[in-house]
Amino acid sequence: MTRTETPPIGPVVGMVGAGQLARMTQQAAIALGVELRVLANSPSESAARVIVDTRLGDYRDLATLRAFAEGCDAITFDHEHVPTGHVAALAADGHAVHPGADALVHAQDKIVMRERLTAIGAPCPAWARVSSADDLDRFAKEHGWPVVLKAVRGGYDGRGVWVCASAADAEEVLASGTGLMAEAFVPFERELAVLVARSPHGQGVSYPVVETVQRDGICVEVIAPAPGLDPEDAAAAQHIALKIASELGVTGLLAVEMFQLPGGRIMVNELAMRPHNSGHWTIEGSRTSQFEQHLRAVLDLPLGSPAPVAPVVVMVNLLGGDDPDVFARYEHVMAHDPGVKIHFYGKEVRPGRKIGHVTAFGTDLGEVRARARHAAVHLMTGEYV
Amino acid sequence: MTRTETPPIGPVVGMVGAGQLARMTQQAAIALGVELRVLANSPSESAARVIVDTRLGDYRDLATLRAFAEGCDAITFDHEHVPTGHVAALAADGHAVHPGADALVHAQDKIVMRERLTAIGAPCPAWARVSSADDLDRFAKEHGWPVVLKAVRGGYDGRGVWVCASAADAEEVLASGTGLMAEAFVPFERELAVLVARSPHGQGVSYPVVETVQRDGICVEVIAPAPGLDPEDAAAAQHIALKIASELGVTGLLAVEMFQLPGGRIMVNELAMRPHNSGHWTIEGSRTSQFEQHLRAVLDLPLGSPAPVAPVVVMVNLLGGDDPDVFARYEHVMAHDPGVKIHFYGKEVRPGRKIGHVTAFGTDLGEVRARARHAAVHLMTGEYV
Repeated sequence: MTRTETPPIGPVVGMVGAGQLARMTQQAAIALGVELRVLANSPSESAARVIVDTRLGDYRDLATLRAFAEGCDAITFDHEHVPTGHVAALAADGHAVHPGADALVHAQDKIVMRERLTAIGAPCPAWARVSSADDLDRFAKEHGWPVVLKAVRGGYDGRGVWVCASAADAEEVLASGTGLMAEAFVPFERELAVLVARSPHGQGVSYPVVETVQRDGICVEVIAPAPGLDPEDAAAAQHIALKIASELGVTGLLAVEMFQLPGGRIMVNELAMRPHNSGHWTIEGSRTSQFEQHLRAVLDLPLGSPAPVAPVVVMVNLLGGDDPDVFARYEHVMAHDPGVKIHFYGKEVRPGRKIGHVTAFGTDLGEVRARARHAAVHLMTGEYV
Repeated sequence: MTRTETPPIGPVVGMVGAGQLARMTQQAAIALGVELRVLANSPSESAARVIVDTRLGDYRDLATLRAFAEGCDAITFDHEHVPTGHVAALAADGHAVHPGADALVHAQDKIVMRERLTAIGAPCPAWARVSSADDLDRFAKEHGWPVVLKAVRGGYDGRGVWVCASAADAEEVLASGTGLMAEAFVPFERELAVLVARSPHGQGVSYPVVETVQRDGICVEVIAPAPGLDPEDAAAAQHIALKIASELGVTGLLAVEMFQLPGGRIMVNELAMRPHNSGHWTIEGSRTSQFEQHLRAVLDLPLGSPAPVAPVVVMVNLLGGDDPDVFARYEHVMAHDPGVKIHFYGKEVRPGRKIGHVTAFGTDLGEVRARARHAAVHLMTGEYV
């Protein structure tokens, strides 16, 4: 069945990519009567399984993107890997592309991002472009070891980041030919994230600041709101995120990953311009899910309330384990805790792969966190914690 | 794209029918990783627009149903019109059909329903089978005019119900050959509904009792929980609904529509065995939406918490008006009230047709109701109230 048989009733939003972010966007699109179209690599991808108007093709090919965009009221992205020039070309063709190329490049190129954030006064770690052992040595002399090396383009979920304790640790990656930058290692106390939305007509909203817990570079847990965060620090973090969205001309969602240093000071780590793992808690935990918010923003509709529905919301990611039969473990989790929400992305289970998440909410952080963890650990491993 | 290209990862639930109930079930299926399959009449139906595994065919044809059921882990329904014998035949083939024929017949045949409810002691209006003016006259002599005539099979949303003030009002319908029953007119104070779920292994849960407001036989507004309902009366209503589910062997959802009489007494009006209009408020208003609950029940998984997330939730249906461009009116509604939730079913707008609903929640009934009504009236008519 294709859309040619069934003319759309609502606005058509084309999302390039068909991972779990597009899949969860479909839940919001169904409610709003928005017709979501995705560009997938294969019909077995997470979103392709639940979106009728799935087109297959390579997002690196401009002709494919142009055919995909035909008839869409807005174009947006499930990932940041579409070449910047292609994004600009779609806009030049007359398509409403959100975020646009001039904004998106800041989520694609870490040097462009750092230059711009420095220019607008957003607090960042010390950084420099490096292309040789000499460059790295100079940087380390000024800022000390360890040094964090990052691929300028293409990294995600911890890939493309190397924490180097000495010059020896950096040899291999320096020799690889990858475009690199160095950042001073930030001895942070914890990581925070601020998710904001900005619409083409300029409205902005910020969700509460959350604490994110990473393991091996992958987000494993999100606590909303960030426990014990000073209200002034929270307001400052939201202000920085909204300012970045505005200065960079972001349209749609912007997730700003931050470090919080001992004493409370905040530094910007990374930017993402799409629905973000740190915002999955909003599906049940906020009046407006991040996925609905993104659709509203890219269609230039007024934004929804980001207010939370409970004092504490905890989301824990499900990473694939050795036993792929996650469904067999639903029974215990659902019987044990009738209030926990399970999300499974319809992906083949492979060790370490993000295959879903669980969300719990309530009033007591310790209790809510324990509930979310219990459900997640059991779904992943079959163990009882 | 068909499922043959993409083997399912999760359990497959086949839902016969592809209206808005199946469409909203898909939102819950996406979260749980359940693969929802629907049997539709046309690819432009509400659910067919958002479900990849849409099969086209006639639910009155057993061979079509058998082909549809192949490979499903459970079979369920978006409406009650599948012939009872076909439902039994699918179960005899070895399929897990929820609800089964023996339960479903009570939602299909009002005489079977009234006989059974009377036998188990559930309070009902006085009723009798009628097939002639003489039968009707005898019934009216005992119970007085007006008399409510109902089609024994096939009625919904006010169709198949005639309130007759005198024998003359009944002439036409008596002559039509429709199978009929008479019910005493109940001078009710208001209508209530209780939504319960029951799983094959026997677990039952009840959502809070809601008040429903009907116009021309169509549900237009639902208030959860029913305002001012005496806690004992609420518990009694939930008890009746759970007892009916258990006695009738219902698996999946059961909605029990009730009359509340002056003084508080309750009578059972109608039964529905599927997600129900009186439960749409649960999508955002309860920890577990009725659609997720139905999937859990038909897959024999433990049921979710029916607890509401706010003290007051109000849902107002959207009925099609003269101007079909509902989307053009999103802007005012979203800007006016960032907390209201819009649901649009992807159906062609026709006057009087259920095309969506809106939900608002908060703490003050008057304020929440005004917000939901404002949104609904504007979306339907463009007026400001």
